[in-house]
Amino acid sequence: MTYCLAIKLNSGLVFAGDTRTNAGVDRVASYRKLFTFGNGKTHSLAVMCSGNLATTQALVEMLGRSCQQQDGLFSDVSLFDTARRVGNILVDLIAEAQSRPANQGIDFGCNLILGGQVAGEEPRLFHIYPQGNFIETSVETPFMQIGEEKYGKPILDRIITPETPIDRALICALLSLDSTMKSNLTVDMPLDVLVYHRDTFDLDHTRRIEREDQDFNDMRRYWGDGLRRLIDGVAAFNI
Amino acid sequence: MTYCLAIKLNSGLVFAGDTRTNAGVDRVASYRKLFTFGNGKTHSLAVMCSGNLATTQALVEMLGRSCQQQDGLFSDVSLFDTARRVGNILVDLIAEAQSRPANQGIDFGCNLILGGQVAGEEPRLFHIYPQGNFIETSVETPFMQIGEEKYGKPILDRIITPETPIDRALICALLSLDSTMKSNLTVDMPLDVLVYHRDTFDLDHTRRIEREDQDFNDMRRYWGDGLRRLIDGVAAFNI
Repeated sequence: MTYCLAIKLNSGLVFAGDTRTNAGVDRVASYRKLFTFGNGKTHSLAVMCSGNLATTQALVEMLGRSCQQQDGLFSDVSLFDTARRVGNILVDLIAEAQSRPANQGIDFGCNLILGGQVAGEEPRLFHIYPQGNFIETSVETPFMQIGEEKYGKPILDRIITPETPIDRALICALLSLDSTMKSNLTVDMPLDVLVYHRDTFDLDHTRRIEREDQDFNDMRRYWGDGLRRLIDGVAAFNI
Repeated sequence: MTYCLAIKLNSGLVFAGDTRTNAGVDRVASYRKLFTFGNGKTHSLAVMCSGNLATTQALVEMLGRSCQQQDGLFSDVSLFDTARRVGNILVDLIAEAQSRPANQGIDFGCNLILGGQVAGEEPRLFHIYPQGNFIETSVETPFMQIGEEKYGKPILDRIITPETPIDRALICALLSLDSTMKSNLTVDMPLDVLVYHRDTFDLDHTRRIEREDQDFNDMRRYWGDGLRRLIDGVAAFNI
């Protein structure tokens, strides 16, 4: 499994995901699931994937090639067009894999988060389904999750609004991942994060968080201790 | 859907569950899912159900009848025997429903939490599957969940140990339910809770928590505010 999430804020976008892949419990590996594509001026995109690893790797390869083409990714005038482009590539890849006679009934699908900014637009954030269609975040629902999403949803539901400062949203995303890792073995370190500040077209604010990352472990400890203190402070229920 | 959980502590047991039932989104109702059976002296049991409502209601009816019988529920010398008894009733009910020719492929199953104490034993806590078999809590895993269990699992994983005081475990269970209700519409108020203090054989420490319950709403507000303060206090990540 996988857990990736992205948040759209007034001040930009936050992406965070794990790197665990598994096909059954004895086929476990670590793969990057966060990929960026940008030209530093007019197009800055990030893609996160959850699902069939062969499909996602092929998709990322094809997006990279598209960046080199005149009528490719960097020619899109809106991130909506990029979402359609990516959705079409995804559908074609899945259809190709499924068309082989022996492959009937195998799931080649994957879910994608696509976010970023195209010059002239606000930053935007989409969830692209294996069917190729997609939904965009809204003011009421400013985040997207793919993969093992339930464990880490309450913290996002409680905290995130479009006004949340970008550094607090990042903390929230990391805590959402931390909760998921605590409760589910198929989501695991290292983590990849990307912070995109609006109108900068700068995709360099990334960090890989390894198991021994001091900042992350400090945060985990602070959070665990803080929750225990918080629960100690709740007034007792008379029952 | 449903969300019920129970916790086994050194000092006793905590049960908590919602009352929402739904069969599709336009068939929504409220039903009790927590039932107690006891004689005040040697047997104190609580059962919580998630799954087919007809099956769970029939099961509860039959357990009630069993309490009246000489060789019934209150003749069991161990809660393990009660778990087998309940598992057998459950399997028979499901098999009966599925044996009808038109019922092929319909899911009549349900999952149960059974906990309580039989004189001469420690309090015990089981999760009974629709297959009739069951697992018991352990020191490492002192809680059981049925239904929509993922949203509310991280708080339990982080906090609950057998040493947790019973009133703090109750708060934890309520927060676990609150998180689930915030993130999933199929789990909803009112809530039912039961606290069982070991060796008392007293099943009267129950409370129904309605939507307008002042204590519960105070707790929700305290928790939401506390989480926001806690996140504000996390050291920023350099990215």
